Amino acid sequence: MPGTRLITQVTAATMAGEGYGLVHDAAIVIEDMRISWVGREADLPQTFATAERSAMDGRLVTPALIDCHTHIVHGGNRAREFEMRLEGASYEEIARAGGGIVSTVAATREASEAELLASALNRADALIAQGVAVIEVKSGYGLDTETELKMLRVARQIAVQRPVRVVTSFLGAHAAPKGMDPDIYIDEICLPALDAAHAEGLVDAVDGFCEGIAFDPAQIARVFDRARALGLPVKLHAEQLSNLGGAALAAQYGALSADHVEYATGADAQALAQAGSVAVLLPGAFYTLHEAQKPPVAAFRNHGVPIAVATDWNPGSSPMGSVLLAMNMACTLFGLTPAEALAGTTKNAARALGLDDCGEIAIGKRADLAVWDVTDPAELSYGIGINPLHRPIFGGSI
Amino acid sequence: MPGTRLITQVTAATMAGEGYGLVHDAAIVIEDMRISWVGREADLPQTFATAERSAMDGRLVTPALIDCHTHIVHGGNRAREFEMRLEGASYEEIARAGGGIVSTVAATREASEAELLASALNRADALIAQGVAVIEVKSGYGLDTETELKMLRVARQIAVQRPVRVVTSFLGAHAAPKGMDPDIYIDEICLPALDAAHAEGLVDAVDGFCEGIAFDPAQIARVFDRARALGLPVKLHAEQLSNLGGAALAAQYGALSADHVEYATGADAQALAQAGSVAVLLPGAFYTLHEAQKPPVAAFRNHGVPIAVATDWNPGSSPMGSVLLAMNMACTLFGLTPAEALAGTTKNAARALGLDDCGEIAIGKRADLAVWDVTDPAELSYGIGINPLHRPIFGGSI
Ligand SMILES: [Zn+2]
Ligand SMILES: [Zn+2]
Repeated sequence: MPGTRLITQVTAATMAGEGYGLVHDAAIVIEDMRISWVGREADLPQTFATAERSAMDGRLVTPALIDCHTHIVHGGNRAREFEMRLEGASYEEIARAGGGIVSTVAATREASEAELLASALNRADALIAQGVAVIEVKSGYGLDTETELKMLRVARQIAVQRPVRVVTSFLGAHAAPKGMDPDIYIDEICLPALDAAHAEGLVDAVDGFCEGIAFDPAQIARVFDRARALGLPVKLHAEQLSNLGGAALAAQYGALSADHVEYATGADAQALAQAGSVAVLLPGAFYTLHEAQKPPVAAFRNHGVPIAVATDWNPGSSPMGSVLLAMNMACTLFGLTPAEALAGTTKNAARALGLDDCGEIAIGKRADLAVWDVTDPAELSYGIGINPLHRPIFGGSI
Repeated sequence: MPGTRLITQVTAATMAGEGYGLVHDAAIVIEDMRISWVGREADLPQTFATAERSAMDGRLVTPALIDCHTHIVHGGNRAREFEMRLEGASYEEIARAGGGIVSTVAATREASEAELLASALNRADALIAQGVAVIEVKSGYGLDTETELKMLRVARQIAVQRPVRVVTSFLGAHAAPKGMDPDIYIDEICLPALDAAHAEGLVDAVDGFCEGIAFDPAQIARVFDRARALGLPVKLHAEQLSNLGGAALAAQYGALSADHVEYATGADAQALAQAGSVAVLLPGAFYTLHEAQKPPVAAFRNHGVPIAVATDWNPGSSPMGSVLLAMNMACTLFGLTPAEALAGTTKNAARALGLDDCGEIAIGKRADLAVWDVTDPAELSYGIGINPLHRPIFGGSI
C-alpha cells in the first residue's frame, strides 16, 4: 500500500474516552495525513502489514499538543519591567517608565510585519520543538485597525512558514488605548477593525478581556453581537482577577471557551457545562501575578466542564514558552491530574478552538502525533522544564 | 597569534563586582581556554586585533551557567507517585505502593552503571543545552557502599563523555535505609562508604540532609568530622522544612554552602556570612512541595551572604531540568532580582562549589561562556520555560 505508514512498538495515549485511553504494544496506521487504524499491534489487520514501518522502541505516543491560548505575535519584551518590579519599583513608577501593556502596544505598532514574524516564528519553533501542532494566536496589541490586522497576518504567516496550524482570535477588545473612552474604542475602532479583519479572512474566532481593568460585560456583548452577525465563534478572558459575569456572558453566547476563570463560581461552571464551553486554565499568569484564588476545578469536574490548559504566552503576565510546563503548573498549582492536564493540551484544547479533527488518536483524525522519550504519560506533567520529545509527526510526516 | 580567539560585538554581563558588570560593545579574548582580555571593543589592544574573530551581532554573553546542586544520577522516576498524589492518594498509600525515596533507592541499586550513565547523560545534555558548563552531582540514593560509589563513578563519567565539568558531593547522609537506626547507618555504613569513595578519588565535597525526616545535627557532625579528617569541604541540606540548627552547624564547619535554607533565621544568615558560606536557594523543591516559608533573602542581603540558585534536579521533590527556570522561580517565588539570580547561577554557584576559576568573565578565568539570543540579561530570568541559548563556548571552544 504506497503512501501508507505504520507506527509500531508504542504505548499509545489515545485520549479517547476517559483518562489516557492507553493502548499498550500499539500500532497506528496513517494514510493521507489521517489515522486510519489504531489498536494493539497484535490485532493489526493483514492489509496494513506491509506498509512502511517506523518502530518506536516502546516509546509513548500521544496526540500532538495544542496550545489553545497564546499571544505569541507581539513586539518587544517586558523584561526590564519584570526587573524593576523585583527591584522594588511601584506600579506607578513602572507606568511612568512606559511599562505595562502600553509598552507592548507601542512596540507592536512600531515593528514591521517582518520583524513581528521573525520573533513569532522563534516562539512557534519553541512550541513545535515540544510537539505542538496547533497554536492559537490572538491579536490585541494593536488597538488600531492597521496593527490588529498586521498581527493577524503575521499569525497566518506562521502556518505558511512552519508545519503547524494556526487558529487566530481577534482580540481588539483587549484594552482601550491610553486615554480613550472604552465605549468609544469598542464602537469606533474595535468593531470596524473586526469587520476589516474578517473581510480579509484573518479571523477564526473573536475574543475579549472582561475585567475591571479592561471591558465590562455590556461592552463585550457588543463585540460578541458583531461576531455573531459575522458568523464567528467567540471566547473570553473571564474572571481572572474578579468575578464580573464574564463566564456567564460567554456561556450565554455559546462561547468555545472561557479562559483564566480563577474567580468563576459553581453557577458559572454549570452555565459553561450547559453551553458546552471549555474552561481554559492558564497557570503561567496565575504564577507570575502571584494570584491566590484558584480556578474551581472541583466544580468544573462536577458539572462536566471540559478543562483545557495553555501557556497564555504573552510578554506581560505570562512570558511562558512551554506547554509541558503549563501542564506541570496546572497539576502543581491547580491540582489537575496528569491525565486531565494531557487532555487539556490535546482533545479539550482542540475543542476550545472549535476543531474536531485533532486532539485524539482515533480513526479519521489528523495524524498529528508526538512521540516521547518516556513510557508513562504522567511523566509529561511530572517533569519541570524538561522536554522529552523524541519526534513530532505532524500531518503524518515524520 | 595562533590559538587566540576573539569574541566581538557582544554585550558582556561579566558578573564582576556588583550587579551584572555590564560592558556594552564588548570584546573578549580567549587564549588556551582562558580569558586573557575583556573590555570595550574600541579599547582592544592592537596585539589581539588579528586574532580569529567570532562576531556575535550584539548578543548578550554571560559566564556559562553552573548548576551547583543536583541529583541527576538516579534510577527510575516518580511520575506515578506524582500522579497518585494528584489523584488523592495519601502519603501512607503512596508509601505502601512503594513510593518515596525508597523507590529511588531501589531503582538506583538495581540499575547498572551503564543504565545510570545513559539517563544521567540525558539530563546533563538538557543542562548543557542551556549553557551549563559545570554540574554538581550528589550520591545519596545508594545508602550502601557499592551503590554510593557506583553513583559517584557515573558522575565522574559524565565529565568524560560530555564537555562539562562535574563536581561530586558524597551524600551518604541523605536518609537511613528503611528500618535501620540512623546512628548505626551513619557509623557503620555512611562513614566507611565515604572513606571508600574518597580513596577512589570520587569525592569533591561531603554533603548531608539535616532534617527531622533525615539526620540530626549530631549525626551530621560526625560526617563532617570525617570529611575534615579527610581534608574534604562540606555543604548541607539545611532548614528546608524546619529549623534544626543545620545552617549554624554548616557555618561552624566553614561549609561551602547551606542549601534550601527556607527556615534559616537572621542569626543563621549572620553565621553563614561570617563563615563565608553560600546560601543555595532551590525554588523547584519549594514549588513542588507547596512550601509557604520563603528563605530569608533580606537577611542574606543585609549580612552579605552570597546567594546561589540551582535546580535540585531530583526525582522526588524537584524533577526540574532547567537552570533558567530555577532563576525565574527564584525571582517570582523568592523575590530575587534578575541580577541576583544570574549571580546565583554563575559566580556564587562557583563559590558554592569551591571553584575560583569560573563564574565571571574576567582575565584568568576559564573561557566558559554562554552567548544568548537576547540583549538584556534580565530576559534570562524573565522567560518561563524558554531557552534563548545561541551557543555555548566551553573551555574556549565554540
Ligand atoms: Zn490571554
Ligand atoms: Zn538536594
